[in-house]
Amino acid sequence: MPMLKDPSTKYKKFTPLNLPNRQWPSKTIDKPPRWLATDLRDGNQSLVDPMNGDEKWRYFKMLVELGYKEIEVSFPSASQTDFDFTRRLVETPGCVPDDVWLQVLAPCREDLIRRTVDSLKGAKKAILHIYLATSECFRRIVFNYSEEETLERAVACAKYARSITKDDPEHAGTEWAFEFSPETFSDSSPEFVIRVCEAVKAAWEPSVETLLIFNLPATVEMSTPNVYADQIEYFCTHISEREKICVSLHPHNDRGCAVAAAELAQMAGADRVEGCLFGNGERTGNVDLVTLGLNLYTQGIHPNIDFSDLNRVIDTVEICNKIPVHPRAPYGGSLVVCAFSGSHQDAIKKGFVLREQEGKMYEDHWQLPYLPLDPQDIGRTYEAVIRVNSQSGKGGAAWIILRKLGLDLPRGLQIAFSKVVQTRADELGRELLSAEITDLFEQTYFLRDHPRFNIIDYSISIDRSTSPVPPAPGKTQATSNLGRLFEGVISIDGKEYQLQGRGNGPISSLANALKGVGINLDVADYKEHSINSTTTGAGSQVKAATYIECTAAGTSQKVWGVGIHEDVVQSSLIALLGAASNFVLSRPGSPVLAKQSPKRVPSQELHLNGNGTKAPIVISAAQDAPSQTVQILEGKANDM
Amino acid sequence: MPMLKDPSTKYKKFTPLNLPNRQWPSKTIDKPPRWLATDLRDGNQSLVDPMNGDEKWRYFKMLVELGYKEIEVSFPSASQTDFDFTRRLVETPGCVPDDVWLQVLAPCREDLIRRTVDSLKGAKKAILHIYLATSECFRRIVFNYSEEETLERAVACAKYARSITKDDPEHAGTEWAFEFSPETFSDSSPEFVIRVCEAVKAAWEPSVETLLIFNLPATVEMSTPNVYADQIEYFCTHISEREKICVSLHPHNDRGCAVAAAELAQMAGADRVEGCLFGNGERTGNVDLVTLGLNLYTQGIHPNIDFSDLNRVIDTVEICNKIPVHPRAPYGGSLVVCAFSGSHQDAIKKGFVLREQEGKMYEDHWQLPYLPLDPQDIGRTYEAVIRVNSQSGKGGAAWIILRKLGLDLPRGLQIAFSKVVQTRADELGRELLSAEITDLFEQTYFLRDHPRFNIIDYSISIDRSTSPVPPAPGKTQATSNLGRLFEGVISIDGKEYQLQGRGNGPISSLANALKGVGINLDVADYKEHSINSTTTGAGSQVKAATYIECTAAGTSQKVWGVGIHEDVVQSSLIALLGAASNFVLSRPGSPVLAKQSPKRVPSQELHLNGNGTKAPIVISAAQDAPSQTVQILEGKANDM
Repeated sequence: MPMLKDPSTKYKKFTPLNLPNRQWPSKTIDKPPRWLATDLRDGNQSLVDPMNGDEKWRYFKMLVELGYKEIEVSFPSASQTDFDFTRRLVETPGCVPDDVWLQVLAPCREDLIRRTVDSLKGAKKAILHIYLATSECFRRIVFNYSEEETLERAVACAKYARSITKDDPEHAGTEWAFEFSPETFSDSSPEFVIRVCEAVKAAWEPSVETLLIFNLPATVEMSTPNVYADQIEYFCTHISEREKICVSLHPHNDRGCAVAAAELAQMAGADRVEGCLFGNGERTGNVDLVTLGLNLYTQGIHPNIDFSDLNRVIDTVEICNKIPVHPRAPYGGSLVVCAFSGSHQDAIKKGFVLREQEGKMYEDHWQLPYLPLDPQDIGRTYEAVIRVNSQSGKGGAAWIILRKLGLDLPRGLQIAFSKVVQTRADELGRELLSAEITDLFEQTYFLRDHPRFNIIDYSISIDRSTSPVPPAPGKTQATSNLGRLFEGVISIDGKEYQLQGRGNGPISSLANALKGVGINLDVADYKEHSINSTTTGAGSQVKAATYIECTAAGTSQKVWGVGIHEDVVQSSLIALLGAASNFVLSRPGSPVLAKQSPKRVPSQELHLNGNGTKAPIVISAAQDAPSQTVQILEGKANDM
Repeated sequence: MPMLKDPSTKYKKFTPLNLPNRQWPSKTIDKPPRWLATDLRDGNQSLVDPMNGDEKWRYFKMLVELGYKEIEVSFPSASQTDFDFTRRLVETPGCVPDDVWLQVLAPCREDLIRRTVDSLKGAKKAILHIYLATSECFRRIVFNYSEEETLERAVACAKYARSITKDDPEHAGTEWAFEFSPETFSDSSPEFVIRVCEAVKAAWEPSVETLLIFNLPATVEMSTPNVYADQIEYFCTHISEREKICVSLHPHNDRGCAVAAAELAQMAGADRVEGCLFGNGERTGNVDLVTLGLNLYTQGIHPNIDFSDLNRVIDTVEICNKIPVHPRAPYGGSLVVCAFSGSHQDAIKKGFVLREQEGKMYEDHWQLPYLPLDPQDIGRTYEAVIRVNSQSGKGGAAWIILRKLGLDLPRGLQIAFSKVVQTRADELGRELLSAEITDLFEQTYFLRDHPRFNIIDYSISIDRSTSPVPPAPGKTQATSNLGRLFEGVISIDGKEYQLQGRGNGPISSLANALKGVGINLDVADYKEHSINSTTTGAGSQVKAATYIECTAAGTSQKVWGVGIHEDVVQSSLIALLGAASNFVLSRPGSPVLAKQSPKRVPSQELHLNGNGTKAPIVISAAQDAPSQTVQILEGKANDM
């Protein structure tokens, strides 16, 4: 039985406006609103530790750089810090661009309005913003005002504000705008709000050139966001001289719907949105300007705000607000361009690969599973997109390997490696970093450490023993139908063996040679690609990557080997020996290689190609030799 | 010029459904939905470090205790941890209540469905949930499926799932439900989704007793939330046999509108919501079940989930997810039941006071400025509601003083003290803790430390010198018209002075007496109240609190003094002496008391009332004495 009390008597359902002919649900947003950033006022006043003057200064400069043209900078009548900061902005030459409006807030009281206007003396463009609550709740509890008293107070302040700003010759150097907020709009009688705003409008007398801003706050979010949109549509369709009015929104986020409220209310006719970066502000915060801006962006509409370096914005906001951006905050959160789940990672990887295959450029139409925004657009990188933990499938790790090592793993290897990754992630009980994943891959497939099986030297020659017919006089023999002969030195657990084997090509001939040491592998899958092939074609930096899946003869056990080398043949041989190493590792004691002596000692020495690290392909004359030859070359231990 | 690139070619505006006769905007939410908590699946898979088995166990138990009846516990085919956890739930007796459904997710592949069903063997109530993407983007990029192939896959899996669950006698002990998600629903053709779901429904054959759940995810949030609501209304009005269908929502939060989407879509006809506590989940997370639940609660609808101890929920979620709940998260954030700004604090304080005056109980109708929810309902305290920093006005500090010290400061003192608080907060550059505020108050108004002026002893007597007419024989003289005589010992900076003064009452007579040491104060404001008066009436623990505002004669300087004492008269005298101390402190060197010798030494000793700490009111016989008398009592230093 829940302990949470029955709320039915304590809380009343919000009664929505009756708006039967509403138009907004069929509208869409087609342009950015006018933005007002109130980080330095509504945001700042609600910080545990408000910004000092220098932090406000830094934040203001960032807002200007981002492109905000209307910035509410302070509440000068309430705090000396705010008054001084406003003066600093006004008095510092060049710090406020000519097209940026400084907005300041004051309560509806003449002495405080006076002080507020004083703080702006000499500003180029200034918005004086005053507020007065219109809801029954606030009028009764906070002010003990009737509707008439509220209306009179609003008009008196609008007139007074006018007298000391646009009507005051002393302030002629300033371009004045006026904003009036019927505070608690969303909880007020819509008819009464219209009455108050009509009276304020008559007192201020705006023009179509300098609009009067009516800011309609959801001071507290009271209901579902469609109700706010209804209220805004009602206001927009009932206020007179709509062309002289800028309808501004100020949604708070008490019910978690501030972004929705701002968007639906724009559809309902609003022109302007007040908010804060990453939704700072009293209680649950103001509407988040980053989300609103980038929501527009992903619909093809430029917000006129520059979020191309979002990480830098995050840094400044976090330093000044001392509140972290949440890891799941839309667009800005550290986890929102990541995918951990296998199916998500797989789909994202496919999306990127297809985009590459289709030759799409950065600017081309973006359509990618699970990613509504190209992370590059906001200065984030692809590498961070996919992260790998024990819940991840093959796609995530494969993506990391592709991005970091340039290896495009075949599907079977992706599955095999993902099990290795999951096991490790389960062991550690945490996410693997990409460096850990690449390390794990290189370790599992012996790309840095030596495998148990190493190639020391080799030659591949045409196995003329398989072609009994000599060529016609004057013609060289066609080699295409001939087998290949592998001859080489392989070290196994530090001991070197001379091996020989025949096959159709280097891989099968080495596979056959390995039977000489008791390793009986069938090649089940094979893939090879050049690394960097798309950019350079061929060159000294190009390496080949080979992936070989082997089945132990007579079993269903499968192992993968990976080889990388400038020499495409040696890359294959390395891959096969890697598979052999993994085969031995995965079935300890079987084959009993470690306990077993070489079967035979051949009578013939191999031709050794200088050093063992980079053997060129040698298509030499055929040598008659047994198909499987092993010789121990003593005293050469690997550092394994 | 913004660096953020022009998005108009790269991003396409989402084309909303044409739904001209939509009904949902006129609806309201009248009941809680069925909830599905997917914290252990969708939430867990997207954690940097997924939960281990024990963390999942702990989280599961919490979800059950909170009241969730449908819990998606795992993705068993993708992870051994998840498979094992599911078995542990099924096999541990009593751990899953009989009315709780275990839900598990699987992709649309027979082998994975088999494995998933295996994990549930023996469960009492199980929901098998399979998903298949239906959008063009996912079909093309991820699966390379046509619409027909997608439909066939869905039907084949529904049939297979049926064959190994409700049609399988081996599983007869389990009550099976089936959930199908057309993944990426919000980006899919609505007509195609209906086709797929009709086919799945025909394959599964649900009944009105056991509904088939169609879960319609906003896998990625693609548009404004009204569009999702339109899509849901379309689905609800176009699917056949609606009575056999449970329409479930699964909104993600890419555009910050998941809560709104879930609410509008419930208005549009949905029955069920999938989400996570505090909005965990891939990228920006799933819809937040805490916000949705408490949003219902504040509208008078019980969510059927117990959030009465939200802090405990937060603790468990933070420990298991290793992601903090954001300070501004609705309901749960540490800052959302706080107010820092002066006007907010003032309004909240008035709201609480009025509530108390009206005698409202915990259960009574809640209407409080800026607070949509009574913090007590979710286990949070009033004391935390108002916090004080340099942006705070008088209300916040006053609220702290009221709550902590029981002192209901007069408005003028609130303003005076708020300046002290602001100065201190500005100096420290941070928020003040409530203990710091009470300390500051006690220090400023000498409630613990001794002021410069201390009362050592006193008597107040009727000043018969002001009444020349003796009483008629047999009648006692009416004292109401008579003045009062203060006689007492005051220590000033450790030196004791014997003072006398006349006035209308104790305060004015002490004020007059103080003129004898060059302190000339007029009482400008006065307020007195008993502490705890509302609960106890009168009693030994009841003290009086007195607030006195004084003006220095001939100036406009005002100072406040506060006195608290069991003796209501002494409380007044202490307040006046506190004001005198502040007067001296605030105007150092003026009056020149510290440098000045007592003017006169009276010839008469005062009657001293035993100890100086608790002087009863003594209405003694009048003594003829000069109106101002000062005597130094040597050798008694204060420990100031």
